[in-house]
Amino acid sequence: MSPAPRLEAATAGEALLARCDALAALTEEPGRLTRTYLTPRHAEANALVAEWMTAAGMAVRVDPLGNLIGRYEGARPGAPAVVIGSHLDTVRDAGRYDGMLGVVTGIAVVEALHRAGRRLPVAVEVTGFGDEEGVRFGATLIGSRALAGTLDAAVLDTPDRDGIPLRDALAAFGCDPARWQQAARRPEELRAYLEVHIEQGPELERLGLPVGVVTAIAGATRRAVTLTGMAGHAGTVPMDGRRDALAGAAEAVLAVEAVGRDHGVVATVGRIEALPGAVNVIPGAARFTIDLRAADDAARAAALADLDDTLAAVAARRGLGLAQEPLHENAATPCDPALMAAFAAAVARAGLPVHRLMSGAGHDAMAMAAVTPVAMLFVRCAGGISHNPAESITAADAGTAAAVLLDTLLQLAEDTPG
Amino acid sequence: MSPAPRLEAATAGEALLARCDALAALTEEPGRLTRTYLTPRHAEANALVAEWMTAAGMAVRVDPLGNLIGRYEGARPGAPAVVIGSHLDTVRDAGRYDGMLGVVTGIAVVEALHRAGRRLPVAVEVTGFGDEEGVRFGATLIGSRALAGTLDAAVLDTPDRDGIPLRDALAAFGCDPARWQQAARRPEELRAYLEVHIEQGPELERLGLPVGVVTAIAGATRRAVTLTGMAGHAGTVPMDGRRDALAGAAEAVLAVEAVGRDHGVVATVGRIEALPGAVNVIPGAARFTIDLRAADDAARAAALADLDDTLAAVAARRGLGLAQEPLHENAATPCDPALMAAFAAAVARAGLPVHRLMSGAGHDAMAMAAVTPVAMLFVRCAGGISHNPAESITAADAGTAAAVLLDTLLQLAEDTPG
Repeated sequence: MSPAPRLEAATAGEALLARCDALAALTEEPGRLTRTYLTPRHAEANALVAEWMTAAGMAVRVDPLGNLIGRYEGARPGAPAVVIGSHLDTVRDAGRYDGMLGVVTGIAVVEALHRAGRRLPVAVEVTGFGDEEGVRFGATLIGSRALAGTLDAAVLDTPDRDGIPLRDALAAFGCDPARWQQAARRPEELRAYLEVHIEQGPELERLGLPVGVVTAIAGATRRAVTLTGMAGHAGTVPMDGRRDALAGAAEAVLAVEAVGRDHGVVATVGRIEALPGAVNVIPGAARFTIDLRAADDAARAAALADLDDTLAAVAARRGLGLAQEPLHENAATPCDPALMAAFAAAVARAGLPVHRLMSGAGHDAMAMAAVTPVAMLFVRCAGGISHNPAESITAADAGTAAAVLLDTLLQLAEDTPG
Repeated sequence: MSPAPRLEAATAGEALLARCDALAALTEEPGRLTRTYLTPRHAEANALVAEWMTAAGMAVRVDPLGNLIGRYEGARPGAPAVVIGSHLDTVRDAGRYDGMLGVVTGIAVVEALHRAGRRLPVAVEVTGFGDEEGVRFGATLIGSRALAGTLDAAVLDTPDRDGIPLRDALAAFGCDPARWQQAARRPEELRAYLEVHIEQGPELERLGLPVGVVTAIAGATRRAVTLTGMAGHAGTVPMDGRRDALAGAAEAVLAVEAVGRDHGVVATVGRIEALPGAVNVIPGAARFTIDLRAADDAARAAALADLDDTLAAVAARRGLGLAQEPLHENAATPCDPALMAAFAAAVARAGLPVHRLMSGAGHDAMAMAAVTPVAMLFVRCAGGISHNPAESITAADAGTAAAVLLDTLLQLAEDTPG
């Protein structure tokens, strides 16, 4: 038997951060990191990551959607693959770890196998998805939905803001858009999907933990709410003659907060507007958004029912019209219990407390769950800050994540018939 | 002695509304009423009103600020004048009574004197102020402040949005801007200022009364408030780890409403904004305005002190930064008790209940109070609606207001040594 593949967390971490730095230099906007789908900078990122993949013993290809896939063959050619991935695109003025960390961590794990000359009963495919953030075409998760076989054909005709449809952008990138359906993987080709990602929240930092095991990607409900009262002159309408829509909305904002606390979900009003919106006019209407997320769909439904009751009561008591418009709805994506247990066992073997937490943000794992079991490992990030140039992680935490990922992969391989 | 001057409320009312209709035809914008200061339509309005004044026996002049003044001489030439006025400018997309009603009512009263051949111990000067609304130059009450001698010289250099300073606009209107200080009246030239105006609020309608006696023009405080918390991802930051600026602002909006009720003042949040203002981002800051008005300055101060305590407590409890920026501050303008009593006596003689109410909106009387005692009579308007083409009053109510104004004037004249 060959020597055990090993990753020294400290050394590995520095190298991971250096690779994220190298990718951060590939940006469309001087002075800040913006790298969107199917642009020249995306091609450069694919080329750079492909070099690293090749050096790690992987066979590299770009699929018909522009996703970069490096395959480290298993002991038996054609073995089902553990896909380790995340995305290579960014938001505008992004941080350098959201997405990229998951790709470079996957490569580091394969490098360790390669160095040790070790082949597993499974293949390992490190995947750099071309689009997760949805900046260019509006639709998110284009890369991972294509792999999962859930991409809607209509997305191919979606134009970017210069009017270029995805189909043409793919062709310009050197992909054959006619072959887009061939990006989809069959379930029997895959063993699992694992993703390392920064937490994008403050929980691990608060607990003093480098990594955490994700239980589910939250289900989410987003709505736009309009309350309608009666506008009037702020100086001439007595308080008891008012139907102030914003005062009703203020009660609603506090109700959203209370529902979040009471039901153990997260609930947010992120936008609000009073109409007509003049300092001296009683608001005749108020519009605001609700964003409510939960790992458990039943908890989300219960929270929404509670909130609906409160909103109706506020509107009735104040004589306001109430209209709610759905903006977005997605069910929770639970992580696979066996994969979660494998991550947790590896965390414990690393001598760390096992903390399980929900992912409130969406990830490629959401899409991949349609075709294979998924699990995610979160990495502590400073201040919970993400989608921001201030995004920051430590080399030690990145190294820990890579070591846990390698250990998890080896355990999965062991549990897989050769 | 000549026959008593009389106004038949019914006939007079129809004529008053017809004159407001005629003035409403003089507009800068087809299909809606907009007539701003020192424009060609202002000149046409001055010319039309001047015809009516002349026909009512008045000597007409335009003062250096473009105000139109018709003087009906007293029994003794050079007698101090009761000024009856309001403004001839409008907001954009205005109603046809705000301002104009006060001017045409004044003319109707003089017509009655003229018809009866009656000269009073006081002169009567009907004044159509050129600017009250402040649409063109930003500064409000330019016309009445010029008469009261409180106009700031700097206003003459204030440009409109085409860059034309007030000074040049006056010259183009045919006025001599160098003589602007000669618009100011000396207190000894004046006996009182009386203004008839639509209520612009719902109180008289709710009480079923055609007219009401104004006790004061409210003092007002306007502020911009900023609460600063910590922005974060709506999906990833747990409820108990948040410093949500908008949740704090929601408490503040309800506190403003409560303070209005508790202190018998009117208090309004008319504008609100959450920052960064995305559906999926916890607001890191929230900005809103406060508008607080009271007839009694002490009540306003007490309400503000109460509100400040609550805002500070909310900010402290939620760990938010709190900053307040003053936007506007004016003391209340109390109406003259003797003039109010004269109005009230006339209302009672008309067989109507006397209702006293505050003016929450600003009026030319605010400026005129600097040079002479002032009082105002409010006229019921439909739904309390104003600054809107739907502004509506009845001919009967207008006639009642004119009759009460005439009676008040005769009583004042009787109380004035000849």
